[in-house]
Amino acid sequence: MTKKTKIKRPKARLPKGFRDIRGPEIRSMQEMISRIRNVYEVYGFEALETPSFEYTDALGKFLPDQERPNAGVFSIEDEDGQWMSLRYDLTAPLARFVAQNYDALPKPYRRYQTGTVFRNEKPGPGRYRQFTQFDADTVGAPVGAPDAEMCMMMADIMEAVGIKRSDYVIRVNNRKILDGLMETLGLGGAEQAAKRINVLRSLDKMDKFPRDQIALLLGREGRKDESGDFTKGAGLDDEQIMALFDFLDTGEVKGQQPMLDEGLCELSVLEDLVRSAGYEEDRIKMDPSVVRGLEYYTGPVFEAEVTFEVKNDKGQVVQFGAVGGGGRYDGLVARFKGIEIPATGMSIGVSRLYTAMQMLNTNNAVEDGPVLVLVMDRDHLPAYQAMAQELRVQGIRAEMYLGTSGMRAQMKYADKRGAPCVIIQGEDERDKDEITIKDLKEGARLSGEIEDNKEWREGRPAQFSVPRNKLVDAVAGVIKSQADEAAAPNIKA
Amino acid sequence: MTKKTKIKRPKARLPKGFRDIRGPEIRSMQEMISRIRNVYEVYGFEALETPSFEYTDALGKFLPDQERPNAGVFSIEDEDGQWMSLRYDLTAPLARFVAQNYDALPKPYRRYQTGTVFRNEKPGPGRYRQFTQFDADTVGAPVGAPDAEMCMMMADIMEAVGIKRSDYVIRVNNRKILDGLMETLGLGGAEQAAKRINVLRSLDKMDKFPRDQIALLLGREGRKDESGDFTKGAGLDDEQIMALFDFLDTGEVKGQQPMLDEGLCELSVLEDLVRSAGYEEDRIKMDPSVVRGLEYYTGPVFEAEVTFEVKNDKGQVVQFGAVGGGGRYDGLVARFKGIEIPATGMSIGVSRLYTAMQMLNTNNAVEDGPVLVLVMDRDHLPAYQAMAQELRVQGIRAEMYLGTSGMRAQMKYADKRGAPCVIIQGEDERDKDEITIKDLKEGARLSGEIEDNKEWREGRPAQFSVPRNKLVDAVAGVIKSQADEAAAPNIKA
Repeated sequence: MTKKTKIKRPKARLPKGFRDIRGPEIRSMQEMISRIRNVYEVYGFEALETPSFEYTDALGKFLPDQERPNAGVFSIEDEDGQWMSLRYDLTAPLARFVAQNYDALPKPYRRYQTGTVFRNEKPGPGRYRQFTQFDADTVGAPVGAPDAEMCMMMADIMEAVGIKRSDYVIRVNNRKILDGLMETLGLGGAEQAAKRINVLRSLDKMDKFPRDQIALLLGREGRKDESGDFTKGAGLDDEQIMALFDFLDTGEVKGQQPMLDEGLCELSVLEDLVRSAGYEEDRIKMDPSVVRGLEYYTGPVFEAEVTFEVKNDKGQVVQFGAVGGGGRYDGLVARFKGIEIPATGMSIGVSRLYTAMQMLNTNNAVEDGPVLVLVMDRDHLPAYQAMAQELRVQGIRAEMYLGTSGMRAQMKYADKRGAPCVIIQGEDERDKDEITIKDLKEGARLSGEIEDNKEWREGRPAQFSVPRNKLVDAVAGVIKSQADEAAAPNIKA
Repeated sequence: MTKKTKIKRPKARLPKGFRDIRGPEIRSMQEMISRIRNVYEVYGFEALETPSFEYTDALGKFLPDQERPNAGVFSIEDEDGQWMSLRYDLTAPLARFVAQNYDALPKPYRRYQTGTVFRNEKPGPGRYRQFTQFDADTVGAPVGAPDAEMCMMMADIMEAVGIKRSDYVIRVNNRKILDGLMETLGLGGAEQAAKRINVLRSLDKMDKFPRDQIALLLGREGRKDESGDFTKGAGLDDEQIMALFDFLDTGEVKGQQPMLDEGLCELSVLEDLVRSAGYEEDRIKMDPSVVRGLEYYTGPVFEAEVTFEVKNDKGQVVQFGAVGGGGRYDGLVARFKGIEIPATGMSIGVSRLYTAMQMLNTNNAVEDGPVLVLVMDRDHLPAYQAMAQELRVQGIRAEMYLGTSGMRAQMKYADKRGAPCVIIQGEDERDKDEITIKDLKEGARLSGEIEDNKEWREGRPAQFSVPRNKLVDAVAGVIKSQADEAAAPNIKA
C-alpha cells in the first residue's frame, strides 16, 4: 500500500486591501508625479524623504493600547520594546523631522514629499490600505502668503497634469469662521471639543450626502448607512442645524464674534493675494462650506475639486469631487517642542487624481510596447539578439523572443506586449540578407476594416521586407507612422 | 501651594536603523533611478508594482513562529488572524504575482520593479532597515539568452548612470559548476544541503576577508569577528578546502562530473552570446569565484562590481565592490504552482550604486536652489509675489520670502537654500520702477578671492539694478553665467 504525501503549498494571493499595478498605469502615474514635482520645484520647495516607520508616540494620535495595537495604523513592537508604526500620512513624519532638525533647517522650511502611506482600515471598493500621497508644506511662516501659495500651487498642479481650467476649482475657507460660528451657536468651550469635531466631520460630507442625511449626522438621531453601519449624531438641536445650513447657503452670520471676524479677515487677505497673482474665481473660489475633516486645522483650509461629472456606483451623475486639500495647522510641531510653530500644507491623493485624469482622457494612452525580434531558428540566436541590440542603441524599445515556443505563440506574445511590429528573418530572408517587418498596428487595422482607406493602406503595407542594414530606419519609420496615425483625427468615414 | 503639571512630550527621533533623505540626494537618486528605468524599458521590460505587504506564508523562508514573529522580517497579524510581512526583496513578491496571474501574463513575463524593501535586522553603519532595490526578471524562459541579457543590461546600467568602462566589471559564473565541484568533493546529497549552503556563503565573502579567514569559515573551527560574533564553520576538512581554493585560482577541476560539465557548457553559451553582442572581457568577465550567497540560484549567477579603489573604515585601500547581482532561480514559482517555471533576474542596490557614483563625481552636483524675492516692505506682498510668479511661469525656481524676519535673516535663508540670487525692491527701487539683483554665487566668489580675475569680475558685477520689466531676462542671465562658470574649467591661476 502506498500513501500519497500531500505537499502543502501556499496559495498565491494578495493581502486583503492591497493591489498590484502593471505597466501602463505605472507609466502614466510616473509622468503625473513628475509633473506635480515640477510645480513644487518651481515654487522653490525642497525634497524630503522620511522612512515608512516612525515611533508610534512620535506619530501621535493613534497610540496603540494593549487590546488593539493596530487601531488605524500598522504597528510593530521593536526588539527594544518601543512601538513603531507605518506612517498614515506625510504630515506627522514632517512634524517629527522639523522638531528633530529645527536648528539646522532654513526657516521657513518648505518641503515637498511623495510616498506610500498605510491605513489599517477596512478596505472597500477603490479604497486600499496602501496608497500614495504627494504633499507640500511650509513650516515656520504665519498665515497669509504661504496659504495663498498653496492654493495657487494646487491650481497649477491641476493644469500641469492636464485638467483644464473649467474642469477643476480650488475651494477655500477658514476654519476660524466655522469655529466662531459654532461659538455663537453655543458650541464653544473645551468640554464641547468632541462635539465640534463631529459637526465638522458631518459638514465635510456635504458633497457626498443629501442635506437631510447631513441633518441626521448633525442632530441627535444619528444615521444608519445602507450597509447597516451606524454613525452617532453630533447632538445638535434643530435650531443649531438650521443656523449652520443658513450660513452655508448665504455665507452670512447673525451677530459678531472675534474668532469669526478674524477668520473672515484672513480669508479676505488670502483672496487679495491670489487675485493679485492673477488667479480668478474660476480657479480659486472662496467657499464657506469647505471643512476638511482633520481636527488639527486652525486657519485657512482648501480643497482641490475636479468638477466634471461622472457616474457613481449607482449610476447617478455626480461631480468627481476632491483630489487633494490642505490647510493651516499651527499646533502640530508643538507636540514635540512645546512652542507653537505655524505651518500650512497640502496633500494630493495621487491615485485619486490619476483616476480623474483617466476619466478625462480615455483614449489618450498610446500603448508603447517593445519591438519583438522573432526567433525563427535557434541556431541563429546571436543574429537575432544583435538586431534587438541595434534598435536599443537607437533608443527603440526592443527584445528578442526569449521563450521556446513557435511562431504562433511568438505572435501572440507580441500582441500581448503591444509590440508595434515584429522582425522576421527566416532562411529565405537570411539568404537574401533581408528582414521582414510586420506592422502589428496596421495589421490589426486591416483585419478590422474591409473596404476603408484603400489608398492609405496601399501606401503603408502591413508587412514588407528591407535589406538587413536598413533595420533601424525601417522600424523607426513604422513607429513614426503609427504615432502620426494615433495623433491624427480618425480618418474613417 | 501650586503644583506644576509636567506635560510629557514625545521625543522627536528617527526609529533605529532608518534615515531621512534631503533635497540634493533625492534629486540625484531620482535621476539615477530614471536612467536605470530607461535601460530596462529599452530592453522591453514591463513595469510592475506590488504592495509592501505580502502574506507571510506566500513570502516563504521567514515563517514567523510564536517565539519570534519578527526574525528577519517585519510581520503583523491581520485582523483575520493571517500573518502579513513587509517584503524583504522584490523577487518573492514577483513569484507570488506570477503564480497568481499566470494564465493572463505574456510568456515569458519580463518585468522591472523598483521599491522599498525592509529587513528587521541589526542596523550598522551604512546598513539600514529600509532601502531601495531596482530589479528586472525574466520568468518562463530557459537558460541562455535571458541570462546573457541580464549581464548586458547590468553593463548598460553602469554606463547609463555614468560609471565608465574601466571602473566596473560584470562577473559571471554558473552555480552548477560549484555544485558539481562540491559533488566531486563528497559534499553531494540532500543530507548535506545545509553544509553546501554554508560553503557558498563562505566563498561569497572572498572579497571581504583574507583567505585564512575564509578557511576558518569553511573549516570545522568557525570564525569569531572583531565584535565577538561567532560564525560556525561549514565543517570541511583541509583537503576539501584546498581543492576549493585550487579551483578558484585556476578555474580547473580534476575529473569530470555531469553537473559541473553542464555548468561549464552553459557558461560558455552565455559567453558566446554576450561576446557576439559586442560585450568584451573588459565589461563582462567569466569568473569561477562568483557565488552570490542566495541558496535558491540554480544556474548562471552574476555580479556588477565597481572596481575603482576607495578607503574602507580602517583606512585600507579596497575595491568598492558589488552594487548589484543576480542569477537564475528555477524553483521560486514552484512553491505555489507545483511546476517548475524557469526564471532569471537581477537586482541593483540603489543606495549602494548611489554611493559609488558620489565617490566618482565628487564635485559634480550643481546646487540649484530657488531665486529668493526679498520682502522689504510687508505692505507690498502682492508685488513681491508677482515677481516670484513671473519667474516660475518661465520655469525658473523662485519663491518670495515667507517668514517674518528682517533683511539679515532673509539673506541667511537665501544662503541656506543655495539661492543663485536674490531680488530686492525697496522704496528707492520702487520709485524708479526698478529691481536690484544680488548674485549670490558671484558674491561668494568675490569674498573668497581678493585679486584674481579682475577683468572677469568687472564684467559681471555681484549686484546690479534693472528696470522692473527686465526681471526675468536679468535673472535668467545670472543663472546662465553661473552655469557657464560651473561647467568651465577653473579659471583661477
